[in-house]
Amino acid sequence: MFFASDNAGPVHPSVMDALARGNTGYAVSYGADTVIDDVRTRLRDVFEAPDAAVYLVPTGTAANSLALATLAEPWQTVFCSSVAHIHEDECNAPEFYMGGAKLTLVGQSDKMSANELRAAVATEETRGVHGPQRGPVSITQVTERGTLYSLDEIRALCDVAKDYALPVHLDGARFANALVALGCTPAEMTWKAGVDAVSFGGTKNGLMGVEAVIFFDPAKAWEFELRRKRGAHLFSKHRYLSLQMQAYLTDDLWLTSARQTNENAAYLVAGLRDIDGVTFVHEPQANMVFCAFSRAAHQRLHDAGAAYYVWSGSLEGEDPDEALEARLVCDWALERSQIDAFLDILRTC
Amino acid sequence: MFFASDNAGPVHPSVMDALARGNTGYAVSYGADTVIDDVRTRLRDVFEAPDAAVYLVPTGTAANSLALATLAEPWQTVFCSSVAHIHEDECNAPEFYMGGAKLTLVGQSDKMSANELRAAVATEETRGVHGPQRGPVSITQVTERGTLYSLDEIRALCDVAKDYALPVHLDGARFANALVALGCTPAEMTWKAGVDAVSFGGTKNGLMGVEAVIFFDPAKAWEFELRRKRGAHLFSKHRYLSLQMQAYLTDDLWLTSARQTNENAAYLVAGLRDIDGVTFVHEPQANMVFCAFSRAAHQRLHDAGAAYYVWSGSLEGEDPDEALEARLVCDWALERSQIDAFLDILRTC
Amino acid sequence: MFFASDNAGPVHPSVMDALARGNTGYAVSYGADTVIDDVRTRLRDVFEAPDAAVYLVPTGTAANSLALATLAEPWQTVFCSSVAHIHEDECNAPEFYMGGAKLTLVGQSDKMSANELRAAVATEETRGVHGPQRGPVSITQVTERGTLYSLDEIRALCDVAKDYALPVHLDGARFANALVALGCTPAEMTWKAGVDAVSFGGTKNGLMGVEAVIFFDPAKAWEFELRRKRGAHLFSKHRYLSLQMQAYLTDDLWLTSARQTNENAAYLVAGLRDIDGVTFVHEPQANMVFCAFSRAAHQRLHDAGAAYYVWSGSLEGEDPDEALEARLVCDWALERSQIDAFLDILRTC
Amino acid sequence: MFFASDNAGPVHPSVMDALARGNTGYAVSYGADTVIDDVRTRLRDVFEAPDAAVYLVPTGTAANSLALATLAEPWQTVFCSSVAHIHEDECNAPEFYMGGAKLTLVGQSDKMSANELRAAVATEETRGVHGPQRGPVSITQVTERGTLYSLDEIRALCDVAKDYALPVHLDGARFANALVALGCTPAEMTWKAGVDAVSFGGTKNGLMGVEAVIFFDPAKAWEFELRRKRGAHLFSKHRYLSLQMQAYLTDDLWLTSARQTNENAAYLVAGLRDIDGVTFVHEPQANMVFCAFSRAAHQRLHDAGAAYYVWSGSLEGEDPDEALEARLVCDWALERSQIDAFLDILRTC
Repeated sequence: MFFASDNAGPVHPSVMDALARGNTGYAVSYGADTVIDDVRTRLRDVFEAPDAAVYLVPTGTAANSLALATLAEPWQTVFCSSVAHIHEDECNAPEFYMGGAKLTLVGQSDKMSANELRAAVATEETRGVHGPQRGPVSITQVTERGTLYSLDEIRALCDVAKDYALPVHLDGARFANALVALGCTPAEMTWKAGVDAVSFGGTKNGLMGVEAVIFFDPAKAWEFELRRKRGAHLFSKHRYLSLQMQAYLTDDLWLTSARQTNENAAYLVAGLRDIDGVTFVHEPQANMVFCAFSRAAHQRLHDAGAAYYVWSGSLEGEDPDEALEARLVCDWALERSQIDAFLDILRTC
Repeated sequence: MFFASDNAGPVHPSVMDALARGNTGYAVSYGADTVIDDVRTRLRDVFEAPDAAVYLVPTGTAANSLALATLAEPWQTVFCSSVAHIHEDECNAPEFYMGGAKLTLVGQSDKMSANELRAAVATEETRGVHGPQRGPVSITQVTERGTLYSLDEIRALCDVAKDYALPVHLDGARFANALVALGCTPAEMTWKAGVDAVSFGGTKNGLMGVEAVIFFDPAKAWEFELRRKRGAHLFSKHRYLSLQMQAYLTDDLWLTSARQTNENAAYLVAGLRDIDGVTFVHEPQANMVFCAFSRAAHQRLHDAGAAYYVWSGSLEGEDPDEALEARLVCDWALERSQIDAFLDILRTC
Repeated sequence: MFFASDNAGPVHPSVMDALARGNTGYAVSYGADTVIDDVRTRLRDVFEAPDAAVYLVPTGTAANSLALATLAEPWQTVFCSSVAHIHEDECNAPEFYMGGAKLTLVGQSDKMSANELRAAVATEETRGVHGPQRGPVSITQVTERGTLYSLDEIRALCDVAKDYALPVHLDGARFANALVALGCTPAEMTWKAGVDAVSFGGTKNGLMGVEAVIFFDPAKAWEFELRRKRGAHLFSKHRYLSLQMQAYLTDDLWLTSARQTNENAAYLVAGLRDIDGVTFVHEPQANMVFCAFSRAAHQRLHDAGAAYYVWSGSLEGEDPDEALEARLVCDWALERSQIDAFLDILRTC
Repeated sequence: MFFASDNAGPVHPSVMDALARGNTGYAVSYGADTVIDDVRTRLRDVFEAPDAAVYLVPTGTAANSLALATLAEPWQTVFCSSVAHIHEDECNAPEFYMGGAKLTLVGQSDKMSANELRAAVATEETRGVHGPQRGPVSITQVTERGTLYSLDEIRALCDVAKDYALPVHLDGARFANALVALGCTPAEMTWKAGVDAVSFGGTKNGLMGVEAVIFFDPAKAWEFELRRKRGAHLFSKHRYLSLQMQAYLTDDLWLTSARQTNENAAYLVAGLRDIDGVTFVHEPQANMVFCAFSRAAHQRLHDAGAAYYVWSGSLEGEDPDEALEARLVCDWALERSQIDAFLDILRTC
């Protein structure tokens, strides 16, 4: 009953096989392996972006921080949601990589609205040289609350950015989960909507530790390479990053895995909907479920070994009926029997 | 005939097996897996250092940069050899992680002597607040020219550092190769000689991409964790780093592999010594061989597919007899038949 | 009719005289002049803090940024008001000097309440190594909206900080204006309430360009000196900073000037209160007045040459009756006749 | 007998007068005063550079660091002399402002030769993404050893830079002293020779604390303004910087003062040449004199109150005949009688 995160499960067997199969002979190091060439071709095809610059890094924080540092200047501020991963979960890595730029938090919910973004952007930079200057907009898709921006919403945010000539970054740690949920193409969810750079997640969807960074305009490709090296994120045995991403893109593994993940979440949600006393904090749209139920139920689940975060409130507390939020994250490897077990306990609380 | 680097060969099969075996079920992410506990115990045993702080990072540049940033202040200067990896091959990563500290290059050869170090340290910080302040000493073992510091030499460098209360870092990207060459214990080569922190290499000796950072005094352990996270080097699926290092430390794989590597190099060196026209630029002591031979011979080797760096001079040039330097690096996976083939060509030039 | 800022008026004649008088012979450079010794003694007396570390820098942004950088680590976040000068008006200088630390905005008004601060501090650092770590609290006194924290309010904020072992910085760009308004001692407004470091403003109160930074605990004095030098804020001809601050502290000039300034503002406020159609956005407590009146009145004033910021809304606009905010800042040099002229125009609108 | 530095003397009386005269009424703050417009016009005229971007900062370290940060990227290295002020005397300020870029030390004497520079530049960036990338060349004129680059030498250095498309910075802390010594025009010593940006010193030549930064190509002017603000070097009461620089440029004060300074030095040098036992370490060409004489003579001078740096060796020591180096710096305010007194003592040693 593991719902703590989608970064704790096993590597997909096809990926592990690809690593083993590719583990022979010598390959030129530091990103000059031949496999990365194939990865580039595949990702450019996937995104219908033949000129895109494509790079691999080992962590999502590296992808986000390096992408933003390439797009922003140190005297700027990045516009993002107040619950963005880059704000809450990266220990100031974006600020470090950007050389001291700032984040401006837009809105107070899971998503920024275009109106909120416009107001925030308009407010900044009204003080000439004194205030932070306007910088990139960063959109998290799937959001940190398990919801999705529709294509219209992404376009609307990008339109605001374009009105102010600001670049747009998309934190796609769960890119595939969003894509299969929306049923659109990668191009539609990104450059066709106005996105300039993407952190294309793999680690949460079956890889060991690889994310791609994609710039649709390759003008800053060499700068990115220097930033990656200077950040100590250029792997010497880079082929093992390439092999993972190659396997991910082979036979649509990335989509298959994301569909399986989302279906697991849908199965969980369906079960939860039938249980009295469970309410949804956000409407689940991908693979993360934020719902509330009684402290007593939480305690039963924890005693039974269920692993997940109590998102608001605390297990310790006197009132057994008080509703506490749970964050339940599904991944592709989750077994239905585990979901059933979880629901069974909850059903009897 | 691949002698370009020891970071281009395959992952050791035992390591790949360990990854596959450990690829089951869920493991708490971000360095809270259970395997790392075993790794810590093993490394503390290896170093006879029961209190040491032990962390894993994916690249050698990350290990060096994060270790130095933890030991140095931004207004200090790090004392290192003029050919140190941290100076020549990390694209200013140490300076980035240290927040703008400087490197002071000591000497002009493969190694710093204690006298050169003492002179350099004494010269710095004679200008009060105006000049850079004295910072850590960083020793590279194996050096970037394939030579070794003896234990006496390491102790002498550390003594200088201690006279000025400076911490000492050891860049051990090829730690195991040095250790088996010297025939000493890890403790003797490090804290018993006065070293405070070690980049303990794994990637060049059979791992996919893991280095340990070890602080013998754990006082700054939490600071290091924050720096690692802020540098985007904390893996979510950290167990796969742990599994690699665990396999490395199991059944002395790290030592076996390093011995095999050094023996390959010794076999190459023995062959080279018998060939007229080959001279050694540095006396090879581990797994890197710097030797010179004629441009014509280089061209023959390259035509035959030998992969290595022409370290000084250029293949292009008129004089076929001009001596050019080669850097020949051996790893554990190198087949003797490949070395023989290389020597055969060279012998007939 | 100059109400645009208190940093646009002349240097106080006594200060200019002191500069001229001290402009003779040679003085050891870079902060080793003899005048600074006297300044240190005077400031320690003023603050009843015989051990305090005292330094001079040329700008308020330097004072704030260097003080915060000395108190904070790069992976921390500073708690401050959402309208703090360090957030809105320093072009990311604090983030730059802190090496990429973050600011957490507390509350949405001119002041942070202790409750708001406690909630913000409690929320941070609940994510272990992932989120920003708790850092210093920075209080602006006089606030950026012309209001004051009472001693009780300062104490309450410091108490929250102390509960979490966080240092407290006070941005006192208008320290003297606050002090004379509260009628307390410098010690009461700072270390006796729990403040650890102060930016002690001089420039807005009659100096040419000098602020003192005061640390009540001198443990980090040398670090501050290195940070000041590294920030390029150590003047070679430092005596001219010392002379300004010495004159400021002589014969209570700093207090006299601040009283005159506050009285000018009180005179302005008294006049404004008598005018129909003028409303106060914040209750003025020192030398800045935020009030609203009709666009038509603004236009009349601007046509007549009054200089001040239209703080919300825009002079351009159709409705002559729409109320727009003005920020009116008084300094010591302001002539009553100018205030009268301003009021006269407004009275007849 | 003050020869310790040219940054310890008084402000030129004309400059102090200009400050007093301009100390009236209100001036728009933060660099929008009207005086700076006149300063810009004058400096553009002086440099025959009608498009140049011109800014004022309070210290030489700020001028150098901000200029270099505007010209360099964090992953580059700056080429400079091994005794450059930016390397030895700025406590890593350039590295801080450049975000962690490196300095490559060229040569081992007071000046870089074009050949040494070419060799250093050629060596860098032969390692692709791994090594530091080539960045700006920084020339110090007057050098830190009191010597001068001829126009031919400056051109030759700039030619190397242009061959590699590198920008050239000139640290002109003693620009005027160099100019009057060479008898050339500002344009000849800068952009006509290939220099892109200049730190145009004022503080060492009679100002209180002002240096201009001049970019002949204004493309990065706005970036510089943001960097200056972010570095906390934008003065609110900026008019007092402008007034100093305006006075400096009025009636050729800057040239008059530099001539007087250099003549003082020439007078000192002439006296020294006549004294047995005094040898010159560098041939003095402007206002700094490096010469050697016996420890006994040093002791006599120090006992008599002469202020200067013993540049090599130490006053403490047994051998009274051992030759120690002195650094003797002259400024415009030095009285001939003081020089005579110094020479008299030395003559009788």
